[in-house]
Amino acid sequence: MAIKHLVLLVGGVGGAKLAYGFQQILVPEQLTVVVNTGDDFWHYGLRICPDLDTIMYTLAGVVDRKNGWGIQHDTHRVLGMLQQLGENTWFRLGDLDLATHIIRTRQLQEGQTLTQVTQFLTQHYGISHQILPMTDDNVSTIVQTREHGEMEFQPYFVEHRWQPTVEALTYRGAEQARLSPAVLDALNVADAVVIGPSNPWLSISPILNIPAMRAALRARNVPRIAVTPLIGGQAIKGPTAKIMRELAIPVTPASIIQFYGDLLNGFVYDRRDRKPSVEAIRLFAEDTLMLSDYHKSNLARALLSIIENWTEPS
Amino acid sequence: MAIKHLVLLVGGVGGAKLAYGFQQILVPEQLTVVVNTGDDFWHYGLRICPDLDTIMYTLAGVVDRKNGWGIQHDTHRVLGMLQQLGENTWFRLGDLDLATHIIRTRQLQEGQTLTQVTQFLTQHYGISHQILPMTDDNVSTIVQTREHGEMEFQPYFVEHRWQPTVEALTYRGAEQARLSPAVLDALNVADAVVIGPSNPWLSISPILNIPAMRAALRARNVPRIAVTPLIGGQAIKGPTAKIMRELAIPVTPASIIQFYGDLLNGFVYDRRDRKPSVEAIRLFAEDTLMLSDYHKSNLARALLSIIENWTEPS
Repeated sequence: MAIKHLVLLVGGVGGAKLAYGFQQILVPEQLTVVVNTGDDFWHYGLRICPDLDTIMYTLAGVVDRKNGWGIQHDTHRVLGMLQQLGENTWFRLGDLDLATHIIRTRQLQEGQTLTQVTQFLTQHYGISHQILPMTDDNVSTIVQTREHGEMEFQPYFVEHRWQPTVEALTYRGAEQARLSPAVLDALNVADAVVIGPSNPWLSISPILNIPAMRAALRARNVPRIAVTPLIGGQAIKGPTAKIMRELAIPVTPASIIQFYGDLLNGFVYDRRDRKPSVEAIRLFAEDTLMLSDYHKSNLARALLSIIENWTEPS
Repeated sequence: MAIKHLVLLVGGVGGAKLAYGFQQILVPEQLTVVVNTGDDFWHYGLRICPDLDTIMYTLAGVVDRKNGWGIQHDTHRVLGMLQQLGENTWFRLGDLDLATHIIRTRQLQEGQTLTQVTQFLTQHYGISHQILPMTDDNVSTIVQTREHGEMEFQPYFVEHRWQPTVEALTYRGAEQARLSPAVLDALNVADAVVIGPSNPWLSISPILNIPAMRAALRARNVPRIAVTPLIGGQAIKGPTAKIMRELAIPVTPASIIQFYGDLLNGFVYDRRDRKPSVEAIRLFAEDTLMLSDYHKSNLARALLSIIENWTEPS
C-alpha cells in the first residue's frame, strides 16, 4: 500500500542525508521532517539552530557537501572581523549562513514561533517538503563531562570537538516542552515513523524526551523504524560509538534497539553487520552507508518498501 | 595657552572629517568626541549606530573614503543573502561592518551601556582618542514629513534618500535623557567646545536637546565654537540647505548662528563667504572645505589657534 505520510525524526548530518533521500522519492504531502532543537543556542546575540539549518541547507541543495553542514562556497568575512575584534570564533559562522540567523533572531524577537520562522526560511530556500522543529519550547541538551563538569551542547561538541568524556546527558526543558500543532498533525496522519541514523543520545533523545512525543509515537499503530547509526561498531561521523563506550554501553545495534525500547517496532541494521540477536522487533538488513546521493535515495526507497510491505502480525 | 581638553560635538560624515583633523593634532588626553545617537535604530534585530560607527571607522583609518561611512573594501555577502531571503535591504550593511553591530547588540543585551560598548569597540579598532555616545539613553530623531507623515530617521534619510519634505523635527526621549558620567567628566574638564560642521537639525540638535547638555555647555565659560555646515549657501553633503528651505529658514550662516543661540560664543564661517552680520559672537573666516586629510588637520589647527588665542572680553 502506498504511503500517505511519513514522519522522519532526525538530528544533524546523518539524518539530513536520509531526509535528502526521502525528499527525492516522496512528494511534499508525503513527508514531514521533525528536527532536534536540543543543540540550539544563543551566540553573538543570535539564535542558532544547527540541526534545523543542516536539514534546511541539505534539502535546499546548498549544503557544503564536504562538511555536511553550512552553505557551499560560503565565506567568513564577518567571522574574520569578529575575530579581529577580540571574539572567540570557535563556532564557524559563514556569511551566507549568518543571514539565516539574523532573520530567525529578528522574527523570534518579534514573537513568531520557531515553527513559523522555519516555514518562512524553508519557503524562501525553495523547499516544498515540511521541516519542523521538534518543539517551539526551549530544550537544551546538557552534557555532564568528567573533565569540565556540566557543558552546554555546542561548547562540548564544537568548541571541545566532543573530546570530553561523557558521564551523563540531560535534556533541560524537555519534560515541560509541548509539541507544536504542526508536529501533532504530522504524527496524527503519519502511517510510518522513521528515526534517522542520527546519534541516539545527542540528536534523537532530546526529541524522545518530550513526553507528548513518546505518547504520540506509542499511540500510532504504524511502522516505527529506526536506522542504525553504527556500521561495523563505528559511527560514520561523530561521537556515537565514543559516547556509548563512555556510558559503558556495548557498541552494537542491539544496544541502540534497547535504547529506543518500545518506541520501535522495526529496525534497519547495516547489511555489513550480523543480524542483532533481538526478539520482538522486526529487523531488516540494508545498505545504510550513504556515500552518494544515490545511496541516500536508495536507503529511503528500501525503507519505503519495508513500510509498504508492512503487515500487522496476525 | 595650550589646550587641555577639547570636546567636539558631531554627527556623521562632516563631523567625522573634523574629528579626524583633531585626532591628527591632539593627543588622546586632549580630545573627546561626543557623537549624536538620534539616528540609532534596530534593523534585522541588530542595534545600529550610524554616526558612532562613521566616527569610529574614520578615526580607525578604515572608513570607506568614497562614501564617508562604512568600512573600505567591505563586501555585502550577508546582505545579498538577506535580499535573496526576501528582506528589504535599503540599509547597506557591509560584512565587516556587521561584526560591529553583532558585538554591540550582544553586549547591550548583556546589560552594558552604549558608552561601554563603544569603548570596547574603539579599543579593538586601535583608537586611542575618546569617542562617546551623547547619552546611554535612547533618543530618536523623528522627522515630520509632508508626504509620509512621521518618519523615523533612517527610513527618511536612507530608504527615502532625504527626499520627503521636512515640516518639523522632534527628538523623542531627549528631554528625559541623561548625560553619562564620561560625557559629564569630559565637559567638566573641557577648556573648549567645538560643534562640528554637521547638520544642525539632524545631527547636532539631538545632542543639544538633552537638557543636561545645554546646561553643561552654558556652565562652561570657555570658547564654544560652531563650524559652519554651509559654504556658498550649500551643504557639502546631505540635506542641510534643503531642510532649511523646507523649514522656511534663510540658508545662511547667520541662521545657523541664530539656531545655536547662546550655546555659542564663537563661529567659524567659510572664507569663501561674506562675514555674517551678527553681533555678540566672535566670527572667524577659515577654509572649512575638508577635501583632503590635509584640509581636515588644517581646519582643526585653525580652530586650535582660535581657542588658544581666546581671551575673555575685558
